[in-house]
Amino acid sequence: MPQKNVFSGRFADSDLMENAVIPDLLSHGQYETVYNFLSLVIASQLFTAVFLLVSLPRILPRYRQAITVAIIVCGIAAYHYFRIFDSFKAAFVTTSVGGTGDYTQAVGQGFNEGYRYVDWLLTVPLLLVELVAVLALARSVQSRLLARLVPAAALMIALGYPGEISGDNGIRGLFGLLSTIPFVYILYVLFVQLGKSLDKQPAGVRKTLSRLRFLLLLSWGVYPVAYLLPLLNISGSDAWVYKQVGYSVADILAKAVYALIIFHVARIKSFDDDT
Amino acid sequence: MPQKNVFSGRFADSDLMENAVIPDLLSHGQYETVYNFLSLVIASQLFTAVFLLVSLPRILPRYRQAITVAIIVCGIAAYHYFRIFDSFKAAFVTTSVGGTGDYTQAVGQGFNEGYRYVDWLLTVPLLLVELVAVLALARSVQSRLLARLVPAAALMIALGYPGEISGDNGIRGLFGLLSTIPFVYILYVLFVQLGKSLDKQPAGVRKTLSRLRFLLLLSWGVYPVAYLLPLLNISGSDAWVYKQVGYSVADILAKAVYALIIFHVARIKSFDDDT
Amino acid sequence: MPQKNVFSGRFADSDLMENAVIPDLLSHGQYETVYNFLSLVIASQLFTAVFLLVSLPRILPRYRQAITVAIIVCGIAAYHYFRIFDSFKAAFVTTSVGGTGDYTQAVGQGFNEGYRYVDWLLTVPLLLVELVAVLALARSVQSRLLARLVPAAALMIALGYPGEISGDNGIRGLFGLLSTIPFVYILYVLFVQLGKSLDKQPAGVRKTLSRLRFLLLLSWGVYPVAYLLPLLNISGSDAWVYKQVGYSVADILAKAVYALIIFHVARIKSFDDDT
Amino acid sequence: MPQKNVFSGRFADSDLMENAVIPDLLSHGQYETVYNFLSLVIASQLFTAVFLLVSLPRILPRYRQAITVAIIVCGIAAYHYFRIFDSFKAAFVTTSVGGTGDYTQAVGQGFNEGYRYVDWLLTVPLLLVELVAVLALARSVQSRLLARLVPAAALMIALGYPGEISGDNGIRGLFGLLSTIPFVYILYVLFVQLGKSLDKQPAGVRKTLSRLRFLLLLSWGVYPVAYLLPLLNISGSDAWVYKQVGYSVADILAKAVYALIIFHVARIKSFDDDT
Amino acid sequence: MPQKNVFSGRFADSDLMENAVIPDLLSHGQYETVYNFLSLVIASQLFTAVFLLVSLPRILPRYRQAITVAIIVCGIAAYHYFRIFDSFKAAFVTTSVGGTGDYTQAVGQGFNEGYRYVDWLLTVPLLLVELVAVLALARSVQSRLLARLVPAAALMIALGYPGEISGDNGIRGLFGLLSTIPFVYILYVLFVQLGKSLDKQPAGVRKTLSRLRFLLLLSWGVYPVAYLLPLLNISGSDAWVYKQVGYSVADILAKAVYALIIFHVARIKSFDDDT
Ligand SMILES: CC1=C(/C=C/C(C)=C/C=C/C(C)=C/C=O)C(C)(C)CCC1
Ligand SMILES: CC1=C(/C=C/C(C)=C/C=C/C(C)=C/C=O)C(C)(C)CCC1
Ligand SMILES: CC1=C(/C=C/C(C)=C/C=C/C(C)=C/C=O)C(C)(C)CCC1
Ligand SMILES: CC1=C(/C=C/C(C)=C/C=C/C(C)=C/C=O)C(C)(C)CCC1
Ligand SMILES: CC1=C(/C=C/C(C)=C/C=C/C(C)=C/C=O)C(C)(C)CCC1
Ligand code: NA
Ligand code: NA
Ligand code: NA
Ligand code: NA
Ligand code: NA
Ligand code: NA
Ligand code: NA
Ligand code: NA
Ligand code: NA
Ligand code: NA
Repeated sequence: MPQKNVFSGRFADSDLMENAVIPDLLSHGQYETVYNFLSLVIASQLFTAVFLLVSLPRILPRYRQAITVAIIVCGIAAYHYFRIFDSFKAAFVTTSVGGTGDYTQAVGQGFNEGYRYVDWLLTVPLLLVELVAVLALARSVQSRLLARLVPAAALMIALGYPGEISGDNGIRGLFGLLSTIPFVYILYVLFVQLGKSLDKQPAGVRKTLSRLRFLLLLSWGVYPVAYLLPLLNISGSDAWVYKQVGYSVADILAKAVYALIIFHVARIKSFDDDT
Repeated sequence: MPQKNVFSGRFADSDLMENAVIPDLLSHGQYETVYNFLSLVIASQLFTAVFLLVSLPRILPRYRQAITVAIIVCGIAAYHYFRIFDSFKAAFVTTSVGGTGDYTQAVGQGFNEGYRYVDWLLTVPLLLVELVAVLALARSVQSRLLARLVPAAALMIALGYPGEISGDNGIRGLFGLLSTIPFVYILYVLFVQLGKSLDKQPAGVRKTLSRLRFLLLLSWGVYPVAYLLPLLNISGSDAWVYKQVGYSVADILAKAVYALIIFHVARIKSFDDDT
Repeated sequence: MPQKNVFSGRFADSDLMENAVIPDLLSHGQYETVYNFLSLVIASQLFTAVFLLVSLPRILPRYRQAITVAIIVCGIAAYHYFRIFDSFKAAFVTTSVGGTGDYTQAVGQGFNEGYRYVDWLLTVPLLLVELVAVLALARSVQSRLLARLVPAAALMIALGYPGEISGDNGIRGLFGLLSTIPFVYILYVLFVQLGKSLDKQPAGVRKTLSRLRFLLLLSWGVYPVAYLLPLLNISGSDAWVYKQVGYSVADILAKAVYALIIFHVARIKSFDDDT
Repeated sequence: MPQKNVFSGRFADSDLMENAVIPDLLSHGQYETVYNFLSLVIASQLFTAVFLLVSLPRILPRYRQAITVAIIVCGIAAYHYFRIFDSFKAAFVTTSVGGTGDYTQAVGQGFNEGYRYVDWLLTVPLLLVELVAVLALARSVQSRLLARLVPAAALMIALGYPGEISGDNGIRGLFGLLSTIPFVYILYVLFVQLGKSLDKQPAGVRKTLSRLRFLLLLSWGVYPVAYLLPLLNISGSDAWVYKQVGYSVADILAKAVYALIIFHVARIKSFDDDT
Repeated sequence: MPQKNVFSGRFADSDLMENAVIPDLLSHGQYETVYNFLSLVIASQLFTAVFLLVSLPRILPRYRQAITVAIIVCGIAAYHYFRIFDSFKAAFVTTSVGGTGDYTQAVGQGFNEGYRYVDWLLTVPLLLVELVAVLALARSVQSRLLARLVPAAALMIALGYPGEISGDNGIRGLFGLLSTIPFVYILYVLFVQLGKSLDKQPAGVRKTLSRLRFLLLLSWGVYPVAYLLPLLNISGSDAWVYKQVGYSVADILAKAVYALIIFHVARIKSFDDDT
């Protein structure tokens, strides 16, 4: 009888379910698609982090906290994508010459979906810290916002994980639903409560900031959708490939592109404050 | 006849005992749990170190010693967790497709529990240096405190090691007890002797500092408890998995979260002193 | 029936075609030629990035954006060439003593041509950002130029990829043609529209800047030519080796040498502005 | 007939002798002891270097030369210990489950004792540079001291190497004796000639500096003693394990702890000079 | 019929010749000698680069260009020596226990002599840039010198390569001769044309600078001599080992020691200019 996984609850050890989650076979085209998207995310996150690090001195000290958090977020993502990439390469193998045939699951190694959740557990709360930090609100307002957003974000991720690794669509749906509660709460705080603070931001960045919230909505929305793919009628390996691509693109938008917009806001505010 | 291990004393080479310490078999769920927690610690320690390094210039020079020590502590921990992670991956192997089956001990490789103690030997004294440094006490008071805390910390770790690697519960208990003496002494110095110094700290950080001591108590307390798990009636591999998880969580609290609170104190004191 | 590759369209999985693209056999001399050129590109890109990073403080803040982008471009290229190098080494193997015999495609591994396109997707738009940034034009002119150049560059690369990985010369030609449209548009913007701005640049750099545009034309021109090689009558493996060498040399010119000229321009403008 | 080794002279290739130097068998306990000490040295040297690097700006420019040399020394040591660690892991292998059995010499790989001497050749002269630099003596006095100490240190190491790799106790003794001549000369310069300069150092560091010389004497003394172990009657593998542990501890004292004391001296002198 | 190597010309693929260049067998002593010298070069180049990087802020901005180039040169050399070291380790293998027997060429891997030439192609021109930069001559004089030295250096290396990889002594001799023409020209420029500029250097560095030119002559002279070794009557593997050692020592002198002397000159000129 399999022993239970602290993360995944008591259903995690069923081979049947595992097989439902990780595809048994990828075509060469599918393998290369996932392979190249994962490598693209590594480069995007790593060099966004490097770009921000090199650019940090050109930001006023007051906005450096936001950019430093952005560096950390992109750095953590790069770290995890290095691991995901290596895990993917080891988990799917082929015996064809030149690697042009089908790829099957390797003996003794699995693809570790858990890296994404470990990543999100650390980075999703930090993304909200990043946003609040760049607004440079009064210290008390800032603390109040973070005291709501950070725990909600951690809860959202923690609740999603048991569903993600489960091959049972019922469990997937249930935890997806539970995870949606803090998700909706975060959106409520961002779009209703934060709305008032936005009006007090300098005119030059107000439009960018509301576009940023829009990007956040759009990119964060990808995660629940990618999560739901296995519930739809799309065949196994395709759904899985689309999920990997979906997560990859969303991670670039939600971390790297997001960080660059925050950097842009901080730059403009630095000019404004300086003069 | 096995030759003796400088660290572990004369009982270290008994296969029987080794087997009592490191489990022969981990379920896939147990393997993944340990795997993901170890990776989480790597990311937490590494990026706390990076965050502090990038943020160092925003701290007044007077408090940089504390933050520099915090960077070193988290860096040393990240280094050791990279090693522990690799040691764990090599030490437990499976022959199942996709890695979803049971994991057994590998031929020719063992999990090296010694890394944790080597880590603690270096970092536990430094954690106390970090705490004393952020208080920015008079040089003589500081020297007096460190002359007590640092040797006691080193002794505590050194005394715990022979018990940790022993499969004999009697030896484990004995060295645990010996190690508790300097542990209690450290708590005495921190809670009784340091108490007076805390009253002289600026009002704005006094509450944070006493919360910090509380975090220290809480997180450091995990180590003796995790150490005692094999003495309780919990079955072998579960106890071992809980111990790994316990050590991982405690290491995040005792080093990374602790460092961030110290950073917070240093930031507030930097503002206060500056104006 | 092979499933489709998001990047490559429906023809990507045909072994026949793959074989037309990646050679089955390389002589030792061919293997070493590609090997050494790839390693040369790694060193060139990596150390150009390091050189610019170390030299950044000697540039006036106004031109640091351009140099920072140049660092990122060369860094991204170094990252991808590390991967290309490793992919190449694993993809071609020999059973000869001392590695002096012929090299054939490895079992289970292929050379991933996709890395180049992932690289270009990120770096080609950035190369144009780099150029516009060093001109230090009025903010509105700059935005207008980038709004044209950046999407065109991304489109050019995206359209080239399906042709690159196809073994069918018709498809290669078609996508090559489509990709040429944004290519010509970029050249038009650079040589006609940007021409006016160049006249307003300080006299000391005007000549260098027009030489830079010439280098851009020359080096960027290599890519479509290398792309067309398989369409010509040159035998398979030679065409492939020349393509790799062509891409390598062009990448050094278009990124590293280009960055050093931009650095030179920024240095001269820094002196001029300073006095 | 084996060809001669530039370093080791004509006796180096005798298998008989090699076997006398590197043990054929290590118990698990011995293996783990060496393993953990080597890893401890990596962490100590690496993070001492990082600590000094991060702390460098808090030192007055006049003393930065000494600290920079200390960073280099600890960095070089960390590099070599990474190599020694990997060499050790590859050189001793076991076929036991969980790695708890005996370890024997691997096929095709040996433990490379040469790394230590390559390390010392670079670092021992630099340790003397470090010491002289922190004294901040007059340029001419400094040059005169270094012109004596640096060549003597290089000679001492170079003369020790042929004896170290020889399995013949006569040769070991002879080269040990020759190496002792420059060793004694260095001590003479440090304790007699440098003595006068110490009297001119600020009162606040005089005691620390004479303790530093004492540490140097103590730690450097370990090397000839560890070197002599194979000459004593201690059984082969034990002598070798003690030698590795002895070198490890001495390297931490002679480089990392030594560097931290030099840093302490530089800090105090920085305060003194500043006011 | 082997296809031709862009670098090596049409003779490169003859197994007969290859065997004449790379030895079939190395004794343990020879293997260790090459092994340790290669590792020594890695440490020397890497830590010279680190030392200069850490010391850069203590140099006046005017001389930072020279030191930055020195950092790049030593960095490029360290990179290539890492590769050469790995190539060497993989190319020669033994089946003896403890690695104490003879080493023969591995199956499927060769030692890549090409790395050295790729290295020199980049670094030799930069070494001349470094020298000219530290003189801080008038911009026009500087440009004129570099326009002669840099192309001549590149030509010298490019002409030497076909001879280096050829097993035919006639070809080796011919290309060696051709390569000597730019070599002599460089020496002419350095010793005759540069001579006049040296007289205008501050008195304090004039002697050091002429010693530097002497070091350059001495160390650069090693390369043609090492190149000629296979032409002399020394037996195959010995000649090859001496060549590797010769190149290693010369690379340390010509890059690391050279850089440290340039640093010394820059330091003294920094003091002079400052006062
Ligand atoms: C609502 C919901 C989810 C939301 C996930 C989100 C919103 C993740 C955001 C991740 C980010 C922003 C990553 C950064 O790169 C889950 C957990 C998929 C489970 C299904 C329900
Ligand atoms: C009292 C006691 C112990 C205490 C250990 C402690 C207190 C460790 C602290 C470690 C820290 C703080 C690590 C940092 O990350 C041991 C050795 C388990 C042995 C059993 C008795
Ligand atoms: C026109 C054209 C192309 C152009 C490619 C270019 C212009 C690439 C530039 C790359 C650079 C500058 C890389 C930097 O290092 C393709 C895609 C080959 C497809 C064929 C038609
Ligand atoms: C006298 C003597 C020796 C001295 C070695 C010394 C003094 C080494 C110092 C090393 C240091 C300080 C390393 C730094 O980490 C040898 C060569 C063992 C040979 C036997 C005689
Ligand atoms: C004259 C001559 C040569 C000169 C080589 C030189 C001068 C190389 C210098 C290399 C340096 C300085 C490396 C730096 O580390 C060759 C090519 C061996 C070929 C034979 C004739
Ligand atoms: Na499972
Ligand atoms: Na794979
Ligand atoms: Na044991
Ligand atoms: Na494993
Ligand atoms: Na395909
Ligand atoms: Na290969
Ligand atoms: Na030997
Ligand atoms: Na081993
Ligand atoms: Na060849
Ligand atoms: Na080898």
